[in-house]
Amino acid sequence: MPRYALLLEYDGTPFVGWQRQINGLSIQQVLEEAGAPLNGGELPETVASGRTDAGVHAEGQVVHIDLALDLPPERLREALNTRSRPHPVSVVSVARAPAEWSARFSAQGRAYRYRILNRRARPALDLGRVWHVPQALDAGAMHAAAQMLLGRHDFSAYRAATCQAKHALRTLDQLDVARLGDEVVIHTAARSFLHHQVRNMVGTLVEVGLGRKPVTWPRQVLEGGDRTRAGQTAPADGLTFLRAEYPEALDWC
Amino acid sequence: MPRYALLLEYDGTPFVGWQRQINGLSIQQVLEEAGAPLNGGELPETVASGRTDAGVHAEGQVVHIDLALDLPPERLREALNTRSRPHPVSVVSVARAPAEWSARFSAQGRAYRYRILNRRARPALDLGRVWHVPQALDAGAMHAAAQMLLGRHDFSAYRAATCQAKHALRTLDQLDVARLGDEVVIHTAARSFLHHQVRNMVGTLVEVGLGRKPVTWPRQVLEGGDRTRAGQTAPADGLTFLRAEYPEALDWC
Repeated sequence: MPRYALLLEYDGTPFVGWQRQINGLSIQQVLEEAGAPLNGGELPETVASGRTDAGVHAEGQVVHIDLALDLPPERLREALNTRSRPHPVSVVSVARAPAEWSARFSAQGRAYRYRILNRRARPALDLGRVWHVPQALDAGAMHAAAQMLLGRHDFSAYRAATCQAKHALRTLDQLDVARLGDEVVIHTAARSFLHHQVRNMVGTLVEVGLGRKPVTWPRQVLEGGDRTRAGQTAPADGLTFLRAEYPEALDWC
Repeated sequence: MPRYALLLEYDGTPFVGWQRQINGLSIQQVLEEAGAPLNGGELPETVASGRTDAGVHAEGQVVHIDLALDLPPERLREALNTRSRPHPVSVVSVARAPAEWSARFSAQGRAYRYRILNRRARPALDLGRVWHVPQALDAGAMHAAAQMLLGRHDFSAYRAATCQAKHALRTLDQLDVARLGDEVVIHTAARSFLHHQVRNMVGTLVEVGLGRKPVTWPRQVLEGGDRTRAGQTAPADGLTFLRAEYPEALDWC
């Protein structure tokens, strides 16, 4: 049974998240239903590099899918994009992948972007794509605070109560905060993240940006290990899964 | 009666366009209904620098509005943004304007951006914000063709049949075409544009980008003066009104 790697773009707004759930439409369901006719009518199995939550977007989610049919990658891309209409999910690229390759377990890095609209006026063009924080944020202070979270730590203070990971040790490779006009944009990368880790880090950094907490506070929260001490979980809207990285070079087209 | 200048951002998707119409909701209607409580309950008069069509977006539309109340600009911005919810229209900045100042007649320049998504896969995140052209476009050839349209000409070949301007003489100051990854982005500026002029120029340049017409063809169309010879009118989705320019420096906040 051939395995394919898919590079996906989606607008998370209308979905309950990547993963199939009984309470609403998921990106996984849209993709598996689009793939069923290429799999003898059976729903195929799909695995994503990162299971994004409801409302979280993706520019470069990576998924693997096993199908009964052996198809040229271009034809699979066209077929999935035709059958997944009109949902805001698009297969940007496809590659054949080895049978033992996994979008989830082979990934050695994940990267996310978080966008904050930092102006008085509410968003119109970027509604659902940004967190609107009307009070002025000090992006420089947020960046300084973020640098103190880099490296290998127990991120228990930044995980969701519902997080199912066995332990909370993670290595944070990048957490950059920069102002771009009316926006404060956060880029982060790690081998893997805990559930809600990015959104909890952003919510905590915003407390520093607003001047309510000192620059050292996010690090103190980390060391305290108590998730009830961190800032609020930033809304899903601002978060986009950018890319996953793999040691194998696949032949994307 | 105080006059105010407003800088507006909107997502054109759900609207019949800027201008009030009986067949659906316009941006003008949303704004005037939001302003009525600040105008003794009467609908205020508003005038825009450019009357965008259905589906066309704005990052920096400029509008003037006359209101019975004399309000600090910040308070007017907050009041209009609260009352225009949940429509995707946002008043980004407000300034007091002289009584003789007009968003339309005082403007000395207008600028638009047109975005083409140029990849096989249909858009997901930018649905409604781009024109999807799946065949490869030669942006360099489009740019070369565009340069031959600059300057003062009779743009009859690029105006809509419904255009109400008295004559078609316009001076085109900028028409730049550049590739940015998967996108081909067109920036254009002029004192003023004819109805559908930008979308007709883009549709004509795309014929060159696809290799169906030579680089000199858009200029030949211009000189022929016959609008039935130009390319298709590019869809509204890709078009955004960026800004209007005025000789007077207003005190925006």
